[in-house]
Amino acid sequence: MEFYIESSELVNALARVQGIVDKTGTSILSHVLVSTDKEKDQITLTATDTNLSLQASYPANIKVEGSVAVKAHRFFQIARSLGDKTVHIKFNARNRIELKSGKAEFKIAECRNADEFPPTKNIQEGTKISFAEKTLKRLIEETVFSIVDNKRAGLNGAHLEFDASKNTLRMITTDGNRLSLSEGIVEDISNLPADDSLKRLFDRVLVPRKALLELKKLCEDDEMLWTISFGNREANFSREGMSLMVNLIDGQFPDYQPVLQSLMSKVDKKEAHIKRKELLDVFRRVGIFISKTNNAVTFDFTKEDLTLSTTNPDYGDFEEQLDVDFDGIPIRVAFNLKYFQDILNAVQGDTLQLELGDVLDPCILQLKDRDDCKFVIMPMRLN
Amino acid sequence: MEFYIESSELVNALARVQGIVDKTGTSILSHVLVSTDKEKDQITLTATDTNLSLQASYPANIKVEGSVAVKAHRFFQIARSLGDKTVHIKFNARNRIELKSGKAEFKIAECRNADEFPPTKNIQEGTKISFAEKTLKRLIEETVFSIVDNKRAGLNGAHLEFDASKNTLRMITTDGNRLSLSEGIVEDISNLPADDSLKRLFDRVLVPRKALLELKKLCEDDEMLWTISFGNREANFSREGMSLMVNLIDGQFPDYQPVLQSLMSKVDKKEAHIKRKELLDVFRRVGIFISKTNNAVTFDFTKEDLTLSTTNPDYGDFEEQLDVDFDGIPIRVAFNLKYFQDILNAVQGDTLQLELGDVLDPCILQLKDRDDCKFVIMPMRLN
Repeated sequence: MEFYIESSELVNALARVQGIVDKTGTSILSHVLVSTDKEKDQITLTATDTNLSLQASYPANIKVEGSVAVKAHRFFQIARSLGDKTVHIKFNARNRIELKSGKAEFKIAECRNADEFPPTKNIQEGTKISFAEKTLKRLIEETVFSIVDNKRAGLNGAHLEFDASKNTLRMITTDGNRLSLSEGIVEDISNLPADDSLKRLFDRVLVPRKALLELKKLCEDDEMLWTISFGNREANFSREGMSLMVNLIDGQFPDYQPVLQSLMSKVDKKEAHIKRKELLDVFRRVGIFISKTNNAVTFDFTKEDLTLSTTNPDYGDFEEQLDVDFDGIPIRVAFNLKYFQDILNAVQGDTLQLELGDVLDPCILQLKDRDDCKFVIMPMRLN
Repeated sequence: MEFYIESSELVNALARVQGIVDKTGTSILSHVLVSTDKEKDQITLTATDTNLSLQASYPANIKVEGSVAVKAHRFFQIARSLGDKTVHIKFNARNRIELKSGKAEFKIAECRNADEFPPTKNIQEGTKISFAEKTLKRLIEETVFSIVDNKRAGLNGAHLEFDASKNTLRMITTDGNRLSLSEGIVEDISNLPADDSLKRLFDRVLVPRKALLELKKLCEDDEMLWTISFGNREANFSREGMSLMVNLIDGQFPDYQPVLQSLMSKVDKKEAHIKRKELLDVFRRVGIFISKTNNAVTFDFTKEDLTLSTTNPDYGDFEEQLDVDFDGIPIRVAFNLKYFQDILNAVQGDTLQLELGDVLDPCILQLKDRDDCKFVIMPMRLN
């Protein structure tokens, strides 16, 4: 194997696999597989943690075809140290990779035969759904935070579904105390099964958190088109030159639709509008007196303003008023600060719209002038 | 106690004590003492770890005099959260600090009586030496890195001395394998004892590493004048509105002068000039194959160039040439990479001047066109 590649291209390629490879171990999973394609003049890098496999190709000038697995972490360190030069890479007879750039020459000992590397699965047939990269990125950002390590497998990933009536892809997550839902327009769809099978197809689609976080990192160019292909227990997320194969979680996401609909149709709802940035500012302050055992913030809504307060016997008391547009009877409710903060940090938009029921009813959050995301938070009991 | 202060002033004041106070404990040493001076319209903050005490004053509008100790870490978090506003602080009858800023109101519970706070020492008489802040900062930067935790107390701090012949203050550190020396012009001196007592005065002046790092953080304005006052076993570093009292280490710094002079006067020295930034660039690369058990870099000097190389049985081999101006017979020597990197990162200047003796002689490093700093590194044995 022998090829030339620009160092910036190599850095980019190796950066993408760092979150997937095993960084501390020495097994084959700490390696990245490098293989060449002389016809297309490109190299392909493959990394896997067995549940998640990334394959991506990069332009290179191939001299001799071949493939070899290299310690990914060290290879990345080397690539980053090179400065802006062409890199000459050659796998030599002594089982070492010779890497030359300018006057620097590395002989890398941490290489393994390509055949030790786990094979990558493929999805041949199946339903395919395509959408813009900015949609994928937003869906992940607006939902991933409410996946927490959970004993119920069905909550340990993001549920994906296609809504034929709106032509949207929907991503939903919950940890039992809160729920996040985000949806975006589908650009293209193929091999869509009939109604019953469609329901069955999406019934058990649960994408693990790690896959979502890696996918988000791969989103760099908003205009790129991504496609999800659905296999039996896998999904493949791909765009030009890149594909992420994901083993789906074996679990059943709860049936959230009835809950959400019953909340939305409640009669005596109160509605409040609050500036997102102002609320985040107050959260920064109230958060100082929040501790593990004391994470409730009290929201006191009146016609004139909203008072946020917290009491911590160890640290002290805090309160602050902020302007609010509120149309109901004054109400006092308490929430876990982190649930609110997570949402406000994840979404874009100026004005937050809260729908409140009674003191122990869930709160529904949306953004004014946006109907493509929705969040539910369970309140806490007031002392 | 009651006063008004600008939030930026409060943030600045509390930032300075964070490195000194106990951040994890709950003792009085995790608190900062706040006291007022109505006549001067200022507050003074005091923090101590018992070996190191910082006292600094800041403008404030004092309404009622008083003093109280407050949990430093939480107080800093609060100050930073406030935005650019005036802060109203009041110690109330219920032993709480009320802090108001805009519409936010904190009632801080973590307060203690001022009389629980350890008293701060004073140095009344004694020798005083004054110099520019940029000198203090440079002296610390160019020497502090070669203090490492050492069993020999005499190596656990920076040795300070006044050189009357050159009118300079000198700071010297060593860990037994390397030595760093830096000196700067003295602006003013008072109560200087006669020759014999002068030697005795500086004989046991050893400033701990933590004190040097805190002092460096306090250097913000190059034009400020700093004064060191020497007490019995303390030294006080002060500038306008600020004073850091330091307990000196009880140990004897080794007599480095004869060693240094014998090195400098060696007959068959070889001299090399290398660009500092180019060498740092190569160090970044060679460092990738450096490990705890394998920290030697080989320097091969010839008339034409310098080849840096390392061999690591686990990771691989590296080598790179760089241009060098060298006037001696070709020589091959090995050094601990970190010793070289520490120096190159600490000093300013384009060109490094190396003086080499035989293979196992120490190497002397200086900067071309600068005679106010000097470094010695012991070589390693070549395998």
